[in-house]
Amino acid sequence: MNTNEKTWNELASKEIKNSAPFDFLSWPGPQGLKFKPIYFDKSKSDIPGRPPFLRGPKATMYSGRPWTIRQYAGFSTAEDSNRFYKNILKGGGQGISVAFDLATHRGYDSDHPRVRGDVGKAGVAIDSVEDMKILFDQIDLGTVSVSMTMNGAVLPVLAGYIVAAKEQGVPLDKLSGTIQNDILKEFMVRNTYIYPPKESMRIVADILEFTSQKMPKFNSISISGYHMQEAGADIALELAYTLADGKEYIKTALSKGLALDDFAPRLSFFFGIGMNFYLEIAKLRAARVLWSEIVSSFGAKDPRSLALRTHCQTSGWSLTAQDPHNNIVRTTVEAMAAIFGGTQSLHTNSFDEALALPTEFSSKIARNTQLILQEETNITKVVDPWAGSYMMESMTDDLVAKARELIAEIDKVGGMTEAIAKGIPKRKIEQAAAERQTRIDRGEETIVGVNKYKSSEQEKIDVLNIDTDSVLKSQLQRLKNIRASRNQALVEDLLSQLTAAAQNPSVNLLELSIRAIEARATVGEISDALEKHWGRFQQVLSPVTGVYSKAYNNGMDWKEVSKKIQTFEQKAGRRPRILVAKMGQDGHDRGAKVISSAFSDAGFDVDLAPLFSTPEEVAQMAIDHDVHLIGISSQAAGHKALVPELIEHLKKNKVSDIGVIVGGVIPPEDYEFLFQKGAKLVFGPGTPVVDSINKVLDLLLGTK
Amino acid sequence: MNTNEKTWNELASKEIKNSAPFDFLSWPGPQGLKFKPIYFDKSKSDIPGRPPFLRGPKATMYSGRPWTIRQYAGFSTAEDSNRFYKNILKGGGQGISVAFDLATHRGYDSDHPRVRGDVGKAGVAIDSVEDMKILFDQIDLGTVSVSMTMNGAVLPVLAGYIVAAKEQGVPLDKLSGTIQNDILKEFMVRNTYIYPPKESMRIVADILEFTSQKMPKFNSISISGYHMQEAGADIALELAYTLADGKEYIKTALSKGLALDDFAPRLSFFFGIGMNFYLEIAKLRAARVLWSEIVSSFGAKDPRSLALRTHCQTSGWSLTAQDPHNNIVRTTVEAMAAIFGGTQSLHTNSFDEALALPTEFSSKIARNTQLILQEETNITKVVDPWAGSYMMESMTDDLVAKARELIAEIDKVGGMTEAIAKGIPKRKIEQAAAERQTRIDRGEETIVGVNKYKSSEQEKIDVLNIDTDSVLKSQLQRLKNIRASRNQALVEDLLSQLTAAAQNPSVNLLELSIRAIEARATVGEISDALEKHWGRFQQVLSPVTGVYSKAYNNGMDWKEVSKKIQTFEQKAGRRPRILVAKMGQDGHDRGAKVISSAFSDAGFDVDLAPLFSTPEEVAQMAIDHDVHLIGISSQAAGHKALVPELIEHLKKNKVSDIGVIVGGVIPPEDYEFLFQKGAKLVFGPGTPVVDSINKVLDLLLGTK
Repeated sequence: MNTNEKTWNELASKEIKNSAPFDFLSWPGPQGLKFKPIYFDKSKSDIPGRPPFLRGPKATMYSGRPWTIRQYAGFSTAEDSNRFYKNILKGGGQGISVAFDLATHRGYDSDHPRVRGDVGKAGVAIDSVEDMKILFDQIDLGTVSVSMTMNGAVLPVLAGYIVAAKEQGVPLDKLSGTIQNDILKEFMVRNTYIYPPKESMRIVADILEFTSQKMPKFNSISISGYHMQEAGADIALELAYTLADGKEYIKTALSKGLALDDFAPRLSFFFGIGMNFYLEIAKLRAARVLWSEIVSSFGAKDPRSLALRTHCQTSGWSLTAQDPHNNIVRTTVEAMAAIFGGTQSLHTNSFDEALALPTEFSSKIARNTQLILQEETNITKVVDPWAGSYMMESMTDDLVAKARELIAEIDKVGGMTEAIAKGIPKRKIEQAAAERQTRIDRGEETIVGVNKYKSSEQEKIDVLNIDTDSVLKSQLQRLKNIRASRNQALVEDLLSQLTAAAQNPSVNLLELSIRAIEARATVGEISDALEKHWGRFQQVLSPVTGVYSKAYNNGMDWKEVSKKIQTFEQKAGRRPRILVAKMGQDGHDRGAKVISSAFSDAGFDVDLAPLFSTPEEVAQMAIDHDVHLIGISSQAAGHKALVPELIEHLKKNKVSDIGVIVGGVIPPEDYEFLFQKGAKLVFGPGTPVVDSINKVLDLLLGTK
Repeated sequence: MNTNEKTWNELASKEIKNSAPFDFLSWPGPQGLKFKPIYFDKSKSDIPGRPPFLRGPKATMYSGRPWTIRQYAGFSTAEDSNRFYKNILKGGGQGISVAFDLATHRGYDSDHPRVRGDVGKAGVAIDSVEDMKILFDQIDLGTVSVSMTMNGAVLPVLAGYIVAAKEQGVPLDKLSGTIQNDILKEFMVRNTYIYPPKESMRIVADILEFTSQKMPKFNSISISGYHMQEAGADIALELAYTLADGKEYIKTALSKGLALDDFAPRLSFFFGIGMNFYLEIAKLRAARVLWSEIVSSFGAKDPRSLALRTHCQTSGWSLTAQDPHNNIVRTTVEAMAAIFGGTQSLHTNSFDEALALPTEFSSKIARNTQLILQEETNITKVVDPWAGSYMMESMTDDLVAKARELIAEIDKVGGMTEAIAKGIPKRKIEQAAAERQTRIDRGEETIVGVNKYKSSEQEKIDVLNIDTDSVLKSQLQRLKNIRASRNQALVEDLLSQLTAAAQNPSVNLLELSIRAIEARATVGEISDALEKHWGRFQQVLSPVTGVYSKAYNNGMDWKEVSKKIQTFEQKAGRRPRILVAKMGQDGHDRGAKVISSAFSDAGFDVDLAPLFSTPEEVAQMAIDHDVHLIGISSQAAGHKALVPELIEHLKKNKVSDIGVIVGGVIPPEDYEFLFQKGAKLVFGPGTPVVDSINKVLDLLLGTK
């Protein structure tokens, strides 16, 4: 054994409790060949399992134990979700990951008037610990690790999980899993925040404090780049801003007086993995090196503080509604990149997700994708197989250097909270998103079946249809029951304690939320209690401009658009005006922003409605601004409830000359329904923006 | 630029006719990063595009031009196949690859009584140049490269292609493509030979001679490991025996007096790519190094003679009938291995191929798999990306060393023809196949959905159904027409010249076949003319024994089997006896052999019918041998015609006590049909052999 092998041997034998890990983890090849679990170059000393962790946070990586298959899912009701999780665990899934509906994310109970259309849509509706207990029924929270994607209403939801576990008889120190609790990226891209940035950071700190003291096996935060990539960030931006967010959380926790080595080992990460295969692998390798460097700079003593552990999810953005079967290929490629990068757990998307939420069948194939990679390919047998590849090592170095630059830019303005206030990351990400969209629209970047190799016939696949009415009814009933049976005075007392604590940083808000949840306060009530002092945060939206007009540089397509705009202007006496809006609690605004940018570049007057508007508010704004059109962008399955409601409100106001058009993740089966309800045009994912502009102009001109 | 970069720059600039290939082929990354088309370690000097070609046969590889997407397909009639090829070319396919039916493979015209059940089944039926002309109608053979999988009837089929091109007005020296023409592996595994080994090698040599003189752009042979892998060879065996075959072809051509550098650059290869990801990549890299070494040893002067160029196909064996969507994942993984290995062209299997021949839809998804990899992932941008990986370089070295050993073993007995006569490669491959099957049956190797993570519900997918009757009718009509309209005397004269030439090695058989085909002689007539002197070769089959009993080592499963065998023996007075048979022209006998081995180990008396038997012959053999059961193994879609015919012959002979069971690639929809026709049991792919033994014994004992 050379020196590297000896060092590795020592680290590995501790991990797997075996004195001869090389032998134990070696694997058979054809005709008597035997292969090692790790290969080294004698002259280099990158050893996985020790800083800077280039080759992985653990010495044995998947050769010791493969990554955790963790499929993010939530099905409307706690009952359905529970059944699904139990199936996942039976079918080879190794942990569960809860998707909440948008009402829950934004801290509204299901009976709140603003969330009609969102309840039970993109995930499970949770109003109280009673829902949580159904969610985890017969799932042993002492052994099954639970990941929860929750940021806005993180206090009542995490508290709900803790109380459900307590009432199962599981003590806090046995709980394993992850809470996303990453509010910074919400302000940057995903928008499921509730309170303003400073107050939101207080919540993060309180959670770090509580979990570092009482939940040693639980990841107190999942610092997420995924949503940046989904919003259009390129790989370097995603890498740098995620780590810069992490840096900011460390500063927050330190300022709260926590000891670095107490909480740093429980910080975890979450990256998106798209189709840029080599770079995605290099990104994860680079992230580990950079994180080790960052945490070191704060003076960590424990090497575990320096190890970046991450969950990954394949890219939703890369999926297409056209030829959905192609998405199985894409997801496989992305899963492999995540694995070669050394992820600790992985979610693979279902092939129908560009059309609707996944069905049980498509979820099974997504899970099988990981099982096949784990058990049929032997790719788990060797630690960091790309190590030494001239290309991969060079690419990793390049990304490390570029991310250092970008992080330094953020440091220069005083860190991420400050940078967000200045709009820096948001602007860069939107710029990258718009640039990529133009490359795709112009065919400079291929998407098979969308802008090249289009199919003449579209396959019909069965997509999931959600019966919102029954979900809503059952949530309302359960809320009624809980309110009728609890100790109301106790609940009210705890809620006013929470309101008071909002202004008293010495009280831990999670601790207090747990007591409130235990007393059967609801998610909405707890959110409200804090909102009293803090208010609800509302961002001002302004799309980037100039990207489209620059890219098209007055080419043929663009000239056609300009001509039509002129024709319209001559006819109508003013430029066409469109209100771009998202309705309900869905904050995924990449689509709305890209559309706003492009329509604005094309010569439309564009108004962008505030996020989280109700149909009534959007109708009123359209009337007030005297627009010609309302463009609704939908990604979270609320279109069937919200679009008809919007049109009703227009009718109620006797407005007949404002056309409503809809775009986003909309199953083809729903097109006819929307047309019948009065929508003029529907655009599925993958429509080139210039095509949609042309169609909209044809509609306005009455030419087609 | 360092020395390596300079050398590469020189080679690359010649290939792409650009003086600055580094700049020209560099590619953009995020935030202004720029990546190279190739990365080197200064201290090493492995340059692609020059011997030993470790990193690829070309300097620029896919960064200059991606691999050719070449989908192997044939649909019953020349008309249907032609339409399919034209669609492929329109949909992004970059070459065509013809699958012939088994009647054509074995040199029978469609009206031959032995091939009822095979016409138009696993590919297109070709009887004459008139069929060929329909096959290539409106496909410019001067520009579209055509690959033909043909070995047995290689003379009339290659002649047919040449004459079709001639009659299109395309001269011989413009023709590009590949003819498989690899007869050695047919004797080893696939069994679509016609004549004995020595005579078959004469044909290979004549084709090498003709093409090296007149078809400089055409690959005269495709030395194939694919079928070895499909037959169960492990990666080392496939690698070594394929190269040993190549060595034997070189010796054959040299003995014919051809100059090495005249034909060696047109030798091409064909490998299968299974799920053992890293090893499949290493295999292709090792193959190039070894081939360069082998051809050098014969004294080649031209570096192009030393470059191994290969086609690859993803593994059919790895596909499952259970959860067919999983096969999209498997094929993607395998395609990536082929690409990372540096293949020149690739066929990706369709996800329904474990159930039936592919539909247009499943073929599209298979093609899209490659398009997505080529155009959405950036994996084409860098030459040999794994170069330098500690693991990959070590694995490549290991495989090179192991293959050298195995090739030396073959050399020791006097080369491959001799080794085949001694049964060495066949035995080793069957041993590997049986061992792997036991590992799978015992769950030591996972196949998702088959021996682990089984689905409770099976999805229904639409599979291709072939209307054989109409194919047969149209072929018979066309044969009648051609025989009625040709110059019969001329045809007869040319056929007797062919018969004479069989004994005269100075005549080139391809040249003469072209004249016969031009005169409208049929495929069957040309085959017959040579068969007159040479006869048809018939192999004696004998399955390996002992693998199963050793693996099960008297475990519980095996004890149950033994008990049932004893019970049967007590009741019947003798051991159960089974005749294992394939019918028709399908020579894929891995399944039949594995079953024979296992049943024999279990305590059955096993008779193995000669390949290519008719239903009548099988029925007679079963009666003569007084068996209790006939086990039919089917892989090429002939079961619906042949199984009922077999049962009819048993009935005609008033035999009612011989049960017929069927296994292999059989669409679930056909089970009921087979039961109605009298089959007792049907086993789909993936049935553990011990399960099938138990079910067969239950049937014999009348217990279930």
